[in-house]
Amino acid sequence: MTIDTLADAPIAGSGAAPARRSALERLLSPRSIAMVGASNNPNGLGGMVFANLKRSFKGPLHPVHPSDPEVMGLPAHRALSALSEPVDLAVIAVPALATPEVIAQAAALGCGGAAVLSAGFAEIGDEGAALQAQITAAARTSGLRLMGPNCIGFMNLHGGVMANFALNPAQPLPRAGGVALVSQSGGFGSYITTMAIRAGLRLGWFVSTGNEADCNVATILRHLVEQPEVSVLLACAETLRDPDVFVEAAVRALELDKPIVLLKMGRSPEAARAALSHTGSIAGSAEVLDAVCAQYGVHIVHTMQQLLDLGLIFQDGRRVRGRRLGILTTSGGAGVLLADDAGQAGLTVPELPAEEQAALRALMPTPFYGNVANPVDTTAQGLARPGAVTDVVAAMGQSRAFDLMAAVAWAEASSLIAAYIATYQGDERPFAVLSTDYTEALQDAGLPTYLDPRGVVQALAAVARQSLDRPSPPGAGTIQLDAARAARARAIIAEAGEERVLMEHQGKRLLAEYGVRVTDERFAADVEAAVAAAVELDRPVAVKIMSPQILHKSDVGGVRLGLRGADAVRSACQAMLADVAERAPSAHIAGFLVQEMAPARVEMSCGLRRDPVFGPMVAVSVGGVLIEVIAEAALLRPPFGLAEARKAISGLLQGRLVTARRGLDETECDALARVMVALGQLALEAPEIEEADVNPVRIADGVAIGADALFALSKP
Amino acid sequence: MTIDTLADAPIAGSGAAPARRSALERLLSPRSIAMVGASNNPNGLGGMVFANLKRSFKGPLHPVHPSDPEVMGLPAHRALSALSEPVDLAVIAVPALATPEVIAQAAALGCGGAAVLSAGFAEIGDEGAALQAQITAAARTSGLRLMGPNCIGFMNLHGGVMANFALNPAQPLPRAGGVALVSQSGGFGSYITTMAIRAGLRLGWFVSTGNEADCNVATILRHLVEQPEVSVLLACAETLRDPDVFVEAAVRALELDKPIVLLKMGRSPEAARAALSHTGSIAGSAEVLDAVCAQYGVHIVHTMQQLLDLGLIFQDGRRVRGRRLGILTTSGGAGVLLADDAGQAGLTVPELPAEEQAALRALMPTPFYGNVANPVDTTAQGLARPGAVTDVVAAMGQSRAFDLMAAVAWAEASSLIAAYIATYQGDERPFAVLSTDYTEALQDAGLPTYLDPRGVVQALAAVARQSLDRPSPPGAGTIQLDAARAARARAIIAEAGEERVLMEHQGKRLLAEYGVRVTDERFAADVEAAVAAAVELDRPVAVKIMSPQILHKSDVGGVRLGLRGADAVRSACQAMLADVAERAPSAHIAGFLVQEMAPARVEMSCGLRRDPVFGPMVAVSVGGVLIEVIAEAALLRPPFGLAEARKAISGLLQGRLVTARRGLDETECDALARVMVALGQLALEAPEIEEADVNPVRIADGVAIGADALFALSKP
Repeated sequence: MTIDTLADAPIAGSGAAPARRSALERLLSPRSIAMVGASNNPNGLGGMVFANLKRSFKGPLHPVHPSDPEVMGLPAHRALSALSEPVDLAVIAVPALATPEVIAQAAALGCGGAAVLSAGFAEIGDEGAALQAQITAAARTSGLRLMGPNCIGFMNLHGGVMANFALNPAQPLPRAGGVALVSQSGGFGSYITTMAIRAGLRLGWFVSTGNEADCNVATILRHLVEQPEVSVLLACAETLRDPDVFVEAAVRALELDKPIVLLKMGRSPEAARAALSHTGSIAGSAEVLDAVCAQYGVHIVHTMQQLLDLGLIFQDGRRVRGRRLGILTTSGGAGVLLADDAGQAGLTVPELPAEEQAALRALMPTPFYGNVANPVDTTAQGLARPGAVTDVVAAMGQSRAFDLMAAVAWAEASSLIAAYIATYQGDERPFAVLSTDYTEALQDAGLPTYLDPRGVVQALAAVARQSLDRPSPPGAGTIQLDAARAARARAIIAEAGEERVLMEHQGKRLLAEYGVRVTDERFAADVEAAVAAAVELDRPVAVKIMSPQILHKSDVGGVRLGLRGADAVRSACQAMLADVAERAPSAHIAGFLVQEMAPARVEMSCGLRRDPVFGPMVAVSVGGVLIEVIAEAALLRPPFGLAEARKAISGLLQGRLVTARRGLDETECDALARVMVALGQLALEAPEIEEADVNPVRIADGVAIGADALFALSKP
Repeated sequence: MTIDTLADAPIAGSGAAPARRSALERLLSPRSIAMVGASNNPNGLGGMVFANLKRSFKGPLHPVHPSDPEVMGLPAHRALSALSEPVDLAVIAVPALATPEVIAQAAALGCGGAAVLSAGFAEIGDEGAALQAQITAAARTSGLRLMGPNCIGFMNLHGGVMANFALNPAQPLPRAGGVALVSQSGGFGSYITTMAIRAGLRLGWFVSTGNEADCNVATILRHLVEQPEVSVLLACAETLRDPDVFVEAAVRALELDKPIVLLKMGRSPEAARAALSHTGSIAGSAEVLDAVCAQYGVHIVHTMQQLLDLGLIFQDGRRVRGRRLGILTTSGGAGVLLADDAGQAGLTVPELPAEEQAALRALMPTPFYGNVANPVDTTAQGLARPGAVTDVVAAMGQSRAFDLMAAVAWAEASSLIAAYIATYQGDERPFAVLSTDYTEALQDAGLPTYLDPRGVVQALAAVARQSLDRPSPPGAGTIQLDAARAARARAIIAEAGEERVLMEHQGKRLLAEYGVRVTDERFAADVEAAVAAAVELDRPVAVKIMSPQILHKSDVGGVRLGLRGADAVRSACQAMLADVAERAPSAHIAGFLVQEMAPARVEMSCGLRRDPVFGPMVAVSVGGVLIEVIAEAALLRPPFGLAEARKAISGLLQGRLVTARRGLDETECDALARVMVALGQLALEAPEIEEADVNPVRIADGVAIGADALFALSKP
């Protein structure tokens, strides 16, 4: 996996651009800006955006207007082409039909990039799509990078760039900080920006990608993850274009320990329809995306509130060494609710050591009706003594018995809030406050505040996940393609005829090449050969009909189980031929597969599919009869190793597949993991395999045996 | 099930109480109040509560103070006993040790009830528990009802009663409305009351139950559900005492169509520990509670925010006839997110009819970059024309293509908000707004406002659930106890020896009495009898060792499957005897059970357990080897009928057990439901059955057969 991509490569031939700055960098961190469509009308889009640019940008700023000599006090040019030297960024807010000319001028001038705020492109149908294709092609040819079209622009507070109408010029600017927000949807991005500011997020960056003709959420994440001032990346996306770039960004985020939090929109079919009409984008499978995020350590959230909650907790960059949560509350009930959520989120709420309890107890009045174990519940009574607030919060803050802390506040309780702030600032551990409202004091201090107990705990649990459960970034040596093995695989695949499927015995040979243990079996071209094979195997056998036209053998009476002895096998073969002749008369019968009966305590299934967004995905699930009833699969994107496969299996059914009585033991889990790894290698070495199913993988006594296999191939 | 309970029965012998008002009614809707511990110190508890009483109560109000001649301007009595006539409600805020004397005086005076705000009872240990038992016994004897102790009192705005310190006297009173909130935890109740007011809930009632020595959450719900001014009941509980009263309240709520929403606290072991120390209460099983709530139509929520969200949507009392959601947004992304959540919450987002789309389209500018299908996304552009806001919202409001509506607002967008309010008030359908903040205009209008898209949709989905999925209140004829059958059951149960278990063949006879189909089988006292039984059955058989000391036969080699012919059966019996002699040497062998091999496509399990809170619960789950791996059970509390059992089975594995390929067909689902009903009847007719397991129930070809059975009995 390479880290340098086109996204950040310097663009050759971009004329006047400084040699060291890529076009994307010029677009996003411009040193000079022009705005085509800037306007003196403060209520129009062109006026709002230009006012935003003017209030923030310290470098050269050029309005372009066809007739007005100046815009908001700055001298205007009649056209972009009239500028004497290139600008890094051209902001474009003209009618869609006028954009090709402006893009052409920007390219000719040698600009770095253009933010196209105009709407009327792919989102409105074929005509708009053609227009979009036209400006995209023009930009590609010249090396100009595009943001949008149909976006609301971007904000880079570290660079003083407010090239957007996410906020109107009268709204105060957010506090600049380490949080970057990337949103495909402009309107929603604007909405969430407002909510983020309210919640106390320090947004340094907001980027809306709109129709994503060139830059998309992945491109922007890939760029921002490298920016030193960015420490947290929040993304809202309806679709993920450039999955490889997204994975690269995720891997870099792992290496740099910068959390990425993703809110995926358009999960349900109806939402996907809305998304399609909204930005002309097609949503991939939500399950695949979740799996990819889990594999590369991206935090997936399901609501806007969760996106904000996680952004807020991550912005101070604190990490933990353990999962022990300390809870300080004046309300027993709030303590219980926080402890509840902690248990469900994987945090522990251990009792404080006896001496710490005693010390806290000594600060309380007598009689004391609260609790000093953890949750520490002072009740209102415990804080009534003058100075008690400071003492109790300080004592709690000094405890080494927990790794993260949650505390309850009332928005009006200023002395309590002051005590929390002092403890927060004197400590390095993550700390979150549950309050009845956001308060300026807490936001000034940067102490994360939540209005719902679950928000507090889910956020703290995310810090634990980021600190303790982050997958290792995949090393350079992960992909080990084996050319010789691939050649052998291709030879087997070549046996497939026009149907583009491998029969079971062929598929099993393919699996065996990749180290998967399969049933001991013999292919037999006719009945007597099948009888001979059964005699040779000398144990109860299954006999299956082999035909490239019969994918589901048992549906047509093509399977007989538990046969013993020549007579039984012979009559079974004859009966099968009769059944199949009746139920699949046009099938060409290649012969019989005679195989041992593999024991099974548990039947699993391993499969391979190709996702339209992320490509090959290997699945593992409970197999056999119940496969569609249980319908829970773990997915991995190749390349991956045994450790990832084991982890995926261990996560099935909330872990019970490997922990419950009669579930898989360690050896069996490893054996199953090897089947997954084999399918992952096959997916990369034999891209002509469209789809594979090894179902069931029969597991018993420490052994996993592929007992059936189906491979479907792409057309040559 | 009777509706009238002690909770509402008039208390005999309560002296001066009006004949028609129960003691509980007098406590909660008092016509006269005294407060013992009222104080002139406005910052103390006694001063706060008395100031609250004084600002709200219109009837006679008597402070009781040992020395001050008046409290806050009202003449004080030196003791409760000094009052010339009984009051309905005595509010008590004196040190715990002084409460027995006050309670005695209240009883002697003939008060209806006492709200004991004092702490220092069961929550602090044995000494406090003894004190609590003392005042409880004194109240019981006299007919006085108790709220608390260790509670923060209650608020009944319809009756002008602010007998609490949930709000301080300076805080404005909530708008009185149809929402009642009952919370075991006082502090958290106070917290959530603050949040509820902020969110726009119109709280008519708030009751904190504290240690629940007498009144508990169930008692209060049972009382409040009958109050005409109450239309929504919200409850936070750490434990549920009086489960029968809770179920009665739920049944009445079903009959009256008043939603109950329950936030159960103390689900995790750690939270349960905190809850135990907090109110001295023991938490029951969260799974059982969830199941009981589902069975009786109580809405379970998991966070404080959800409790508020549902309370808010229910307070206007609107109901729906379908699940079609209309979405109006200015932000495509917000529309997608709302549609997403709708899909997951079971609502649909159908496209509007072509003519309605055309009408909306006609209101938009040209070119138009939004969407009129649904979500209707006007974009900012679509609302820019003067009057567009009114026209578009009105057009949307007139559509009959949806049953519920969600719309997006910005807190600053006053014309949009005004248009929403007009549509809301001119319509009878549920309508919720997603906004960037709560606004006075929306709250004045009672239009439910949410700050998170998921909150909007989950609330609307709850209205659909309440309107369309409410279980029927159980009818009077549900329980059909059959004395003759019960006698036959008791005869079989009498065969159990000291081990208090039934052997499989005995358990199967018990099941057969209740109409459960079991394997065709013969009990055989010795090997030759077993051989004879196998010959008689004349098909492959299973043979199992029968011993009251052997509960898990296969663990000791006590099961042989698929035997055919006398020789095979004889040698299997002998081998089993040898195995068992070695692995369970002290077991007394009663004989052998020879049974047909029942076919199975799917193995299920039915069981019976007794929950410490809710009593008998019948469970159904996937059975066989995977039972602990899958570990998902549906639970029902007897009595219940076939319809409830079918519904429980149909809910397993997100419905896939009955919808997926190779899952249960309708006949099989019914057959399995009959096993559940049988266990439910057994639980009621034979209370000595502690626990039962019918695992596996082997299901194939439309038939469900109990293939094993284990019954454990209570000691006589």
